[in-house]
Amino acid sequence: MRATILHAPGDIRVEEWPDPVVERPTDAIVRVVAGCVCGSDLWSYRGVNDVPEPRTMGHEAIGVVEAVGAGVERVREGDFVVVPFNHCCGRCAHCRAGQTQGCVELAMTASGQAERTLVTNADATCFVLDEAPAPDRYAAVLALSDVLPTGYHAAISAGVTPGSTAVVVGDGAVGLCGVLSAQRLGAERIIALSRNPERQRLATAFGATDLVGERGDAAVAAVLELTDGVGADAVLECVGTEESMTTAFEAARPGATVGYVGVPHGAAVPWRVAFRNNIGLRGGMAPVIRYLPELVPAVLAGELDASAVFDLELPLADAAEGYRAMDERRAVKALLRP
Amino acid sequence: MRATILHAPGDIRVEEWPDPVVERPTDAIVRVVAGCVCGSDLWSYRGVNDVPEPRTMGHEAIGVVEAVGAGVERVREGDFVVVPFNHCCGRCAHCRAGQTQGCVELAMTASGQAERTLVTNADATCFVLDEAPAPDRYAAVLALSDVLPTGYHAAISAGVTPGSTAVVVGDGAVGLCGVLSAQRLGAERIIALSRNPERQRLATAFGATDLVGERGDAAVAAVLELTDGVGADAVLECVGTEESMTTAFEAARPGATVGYVGVPHGAAVPWRVAFRNNIGLRGGMAPVIRYLPELVPAVLAGELDASAVFDLELPLADAAEGYRAMDERRAVKALLRP
Repeated sequence: MRATILHAPGDIRVEEWPDPVVERPTDAIVRVVAGCVCGSDLWSYRGVNDVPEPRTMGHEAIGVVEAVGAGVERVREGDFVVVPFNHCCGRCAHCRAGQTQGCVELAMTASGQAERTLVTNADATCFVLDEAPAPDRYAAVLALSDVLPTGYHAAISAGVTPGSTAVVVGDGAVGLCGVLSAQRLGAERIIALSRNPERQRLATAFGATDLVGERGDAAVAAVLELTDGVGADAVLECVGTEESMTTAFEAARPGATVGYVGVPHGAAVPWRVAFRNNIGLRGGMAPVIRYLPELVPAVLAGELDASAVFDLELPLADAAEGYRAMDERRAVKALLRP
Repeated sequence: MRATILHAPGDIRVEEWPDPVVERPTDAIVRVVAGCVCGSDLWSYRGVNDVPEPRTMGHEAIGVVEAVGAGVERVREGDFVVVPFNHCCGRCAHCRAGQTQGCVELAMTASGQAERTLVTNADATCFVLDEAPAPDRYAAVLALSDVLPTGYHAAISAGVTPGSTAVVVGDGAVGLCGVLSAQRLGAERIIALSRNPERQRLATAFGATDLVGERGDAAVAAVLELTDGVGADAVLECVGTEESMTTAFEAARPGATVGYVGVPHGAAVPWRVAFRNNIGLRGGMAPVIRYLPELVPAVLAGELDASAVFDLELPLADAAEGYRAMDERRAVKALLRP
């Protein structure tokens, strides 16, 4: 098959790669109809994470089931499925408690930026749609494989409630989906931290009521100014750096929670403010499978549409341009069509 | 008055010091009937925290109101009061939300190990008892000024619920009060990490159902063994070091919360396990004033008794011995009687 292969930092190519095959009876193979590039893919592309050997890329995908193992009962060949980036067994104590990201058999989609991808524990993992969506809805549906439930997880983890004031740190695709999710959860005021005019426009379209272009201490001061000196009821941390984490804690009112979903890179809890103000921290990898029964119907009904985060659409062959555009912040998120 | 003065790390003496006086109309002066030494006092005694100049010590006290400012209305001379270590105004947005530790006028008891101490915002801060407790109940009542509500805060922050399994990291006075609080909140199983026979005995008396003498990875393995490989529903972190924080996160089941109350000294969130397992972190300085309306009646009724954490009782003059005994772990917590 054709697949996006990262050879070394900055060296990404679409080339031939062995097709994934059913290895365990619970596996399925999905023909990818749409995949995309995640902000976390850039950690390897930029060399922040090691790239010891060439590897396929992409953990977000939707597509059609092409083959299933002998033990797969619910999912069938021909089904159109959303493939959550984290695959879960559905049987262990953690899955049964809704903590699907903590599954004892946790695995990840490994070739979403390719023609085919393997899904482990397919019955518990794949979300089967009643029918294939129209191609112009692929972007909205693709967002369900990671970026939308991850933004939603930030909002849920931060404890956004109806009428609350939420701050969203990070104007990447996840942060924007955090804005959309905060709106869905009824936040009355959503303060988005962004200095990029195009992303500010998207944040506003997704429900942001206030935009703060400052960073660091100045951003915190702006949030306090907007909240009568009290701070935000809930803060979504969608970056994962030391600066963003500190800003998140300092913008929170005493007793509030920082919902974080950015993979922490050098982040540290600012203990002084956390301790005195009792700011909680909750989040991590999104339990995508837990959220899909709620989010999929809303997306299919058109009530929830994160498709605007895909501001660049390319044929799979041009995946490298997708990475470049995101690396240079010319694009929020690149959708790839095999 | 006679007061415990820390001159330099390791150099603590009881000597004459100016009496505190009413400076603001909302102040009160309390004649201390009982005070005590806190584990956090040892940070300065050991030189981990700076001691730039001689200072009074002690933030825990019960006693009799001796003088009040002109603006104090509720509290009267002669009242027997519990003095929460953190003083709060009761009027700001944070106090009104129950986040008394985040009060905009936050202040601390500064001479609990002395004959007298100043209480700011006395009306909102002091908890007035209907009558003075009998001297043999001083220890149980004194625990209400900090150590018991702090252990309770760990349990509340960790989300201990009836029937749950709780792990308590730390066998100091706060950890032991965490065990007692987890029992009060209905935990079915309470696993206390302690290798000290005397503290193990206290933990058991306070409700611990299991004792784990190991530390670090071995302690985590023991907790997993005791919980069928799942981990604890709630973890109380009552130490504040890097090792204790890591142990707490690793002993938690996915989706659980670490309730922390130890002032963090070098602690860091172990991001890998926190992120994948969605382990939350909540706690910090206890909002003592919020908890007292619930805890005081239980203590006065004898339903809740943390007095056993005071395993050393000394006249104020011997405060230095109290510090030495706690520093050398010969005592859990020293009570001082002026």
